Amino acid sequence: MKSVFVSICMILIACMALAQPSPTKSSVEVLENNMVRFSLLAPEAHEVSITGEWMPGYGSISFENGVMKRGPIVSKNLMKDDTGLWSVILGPVAPNSYGYSYVIDGVMVTDPANVIVKRDGATLLSVLFVPGKESEYIDVKEVHHGSLNRVWYDSPTLGLYRRMLVYTPPGYETGKEKYPVLYLLHGGSIDEEGWTTMGKAHLILDNLISQGKARPMLIVMPNGYANQTAAPGEGPVVTNVSAPGMAFSYGAFEKSLVNDIIPFIESVYRVIPDKDNRAITGLSMGGMHSFNTVLNNPDLFSYIGVFSAGIRNPGTELENQVEILKSAKPKLLWVGCGVTDPLAYTSTKTLVDLLRKHDLDFVYRESEGAHTWFIWRPYLAEFAQLLFK
Amino acid sequence: MKSVFVSICMILIACMALAQPSPTKSSVEVLENNMVRFSLLAPEAHEVSITGEWMPGYGSISFENGVMKRGPIVSKNLMKDDTGLWSVILGPVAPNSYGYSYVIDGVMVTDPANVIVKRDGATLLSVLFVPGKESEYIDVKEVHHGSLNRVWYDSPTLGLYRRMLVYTPPGYETGKEKYPVLYLLHGGSIDEEGWTTMGKAHLILDNLISQGKARPMLIVMPNGYANQTAAPGEGPVVTNVSAPGMAFSYGAFEKSLVNDIIPFIESVYRVIPDKDNRAITGLSMGGMHSFNTVLNNPDLFSYIGVFSAGIRNPGTELENQVEILKSAKPKLLWVGCGVTDPLAYTSTKTLVDLLRKHDLDFVYRESEGAHTWFIWRPYLAEFAQLLFK
Repeated sequence: MKSVFVSICMILIACMALAQPSPTKSSVEVLENNMVRFSLLAPEAHEVSITGEWMPGYGSISFENGVMKRGPIVSKNLMKDDTGLWSVILGPVAPNSYGYSYVIDGVMVTDPANVIVKRDGATLLSVLFVPGKESEYIDVKEVHHGSLNRVWYDSPTLGLYRRMLVYTPPGYETGKEKYPVLYLLHGGSIDEEGWTTMGKAHLILDNLISQGKARPMLIVMPNGYANQTAAPGEGPVVTNVSAPGMAFSYGAFEKSLVNDIIPFIESVYRVIPDKDNRAITGLSMGGMHSFNTVLNNPDLFSYIGVFSAGIRNPGTELENQVEILKSAKPKLLWVGCGVTDPLAYTSTKTLVDLLRKHDLDFVYRESEGAHTWFIWRPYLAEFAQLLFK
Repeated sequence: MKSVFVSICMILIACMALAQPSPTKSSVEVLENNMVRFSLLAPEAHEVSITGEWMPGYGSISFENGVMKRGPIVSKNLMKDDTGLWSVILGPVAPNSYGYSYVIDGVMVTDPANVIVKRDGATLLSVLFVPGKESEYIDVKEVHHGSLNRVWYDSPTLGLYRRMLVYTPPGYETGKEKYPVLYLLHGGSIDEEGWTTMGKAHLILDNLISQGKARPMLIVMPNGYANQTAAPGEGPVVTNVSAPGMAFSYGAFEKSLVNDIIPFIESVYRVIPDKDNRAITGLSMGGMHSFNTVLNNPDLFSYIGVFSAGIRNPGTELENQVEILKSAKPKLLWVGCGVTDPLAYTSTKTLVDLLRKHDLDFVYRESEGAHTWFIWRPYLAEFAQLLFK
């Protein structure tokens, strides 16, 4: 037997040697006091800089005469030593999860020494995690983890066979309990993967549940574009679909949510299929999807969130719907927006004014920040703690 | 209502504008006759080349005096036009799925215009898919898709709480049927995600099942390193674990598979918990894990595969185990290896000789190719069609 052991070990060692440098030997190193050292070996490069979500002005947008303008790319230069290693120490960087890119001779790329990436729509970003008290709620901790399932379902409403993510809480597989469900909707240019890859929704719930701060629940994360089957590369590209992707005002997606997704979830999973055990929220486009859905189905959800989305000019029909929603007495109506959000702050204020005018009971959260995941992750954590109680 | 519709549309359009260029506008374009154009906008770069898995010699390794040597990086230069766009047309490239990287002024990076990537251990590669008859079996087709679940389970054997992937076949959620199970093990330097991201196991089964060529089955893909909780970034990094990651000869991982994983699967999922409805295979390290497991548990699996793994010097104890395995009469023993595999071809031949010496009934497949996914994907497709029949 010994000879087998030895020969197998030889093969194994050879296989191990095939591996590239360990991902733990990332080019990113979090130092004392949350300073962060970035380094990249690039002896032949002429200029290397870094841009990251923690930098003030990153991804900034503004409107000039109604036309949206992107701010310039904010970045910091790295300096090269005589071995060809470029590096820079930045910070302090507040504990959180951030996307970043290197710019190598003018081309923005992911960090070749970091396999942990996240996709923000059509852009791939390397991930920097700065541990600390403020980022504990999105960290992968040694707690029980729920399962994350990529599930396909039929949508007769859209004439599509589609993909969604379903989080089941720790203990779901081995238990018999029935659970409440949060329907969690993504924003424009994102897809069914955004709330986990960018939003860390599964980790937020793992951590809250482990601390007894949130009730164990399912999270259902569908794709909000009514003309897509799945995230890029994960589903067939479908053309000539009559359902318009941007259909709104109780559009195609919202109808498929009510007619196709909720019945699928309630027939397949161990969930409690009633109003008091359904919650819905979403960010930006998903916030509008959420609000449209509850306006048109006031008796479906007891817990309603609207993150960074609002309305511009309320009309009589909308006011009537708000009155009907009020009489349906949701247990929670939660509205939040960043005060420097160029896309949604004004419209959120209009929504808040409307809700106040009709004397609805609701929570309104204004945060420092813009139209980014830095506010949506804490919003989910706050919202989730208020559900099903 | 119209004003709401209009204002919501305005918000939406703004959100859409935030998106980067569409991922369908990849820098990669498959032309007629499987020629492929690669292009990258990099006006300030001095040299741009591309390296990809279809290139002869890509990732080649050899042994000199027992020391493993990697071949040089094979690449093709791109040429720059006066707009700063670098491009090259390569091919013809045989229909398949390939990883590739750009090398920009000496730094190997993913394609910034392609969000579809795969992680090969500690390296992230952009993905080129060339459609065609030969690659249909790994394509995302308009067929019913199984679900892919990231599941956590307790491993008392290893003292770890760990992650695995579980594929359930189309119809699992909505049906009542019980299914057979394939345990599918990864190789060295990979993890529980490898068989789907690199190996396309879920798509291979989706396609075979849709054509009636394979029986609907579950696929269980655990992490084969006995000292890891999960793929990089997906689980807490665990130190001071007594279970050695490289333990072999019926080592720690194989014990946890038998003691922890199989009982978990058979208690949680609708599966048929008997020998004739269990299959096991794996590649390289996972092939050895598979063979070790069946040698030590000859009555657990009726279907056994060993991909690109073998033995060096069979001894008496191993020969005795092979005799016991023979008397357990597995319905299928399937061995395959690439003829130019520098790691496993010789040891596979030794295994084959041993099996012949003991007169076991087995399938032996020799393929053109080395220690790569180009042979493991077809192996899985062939093996899966022989199972549970």
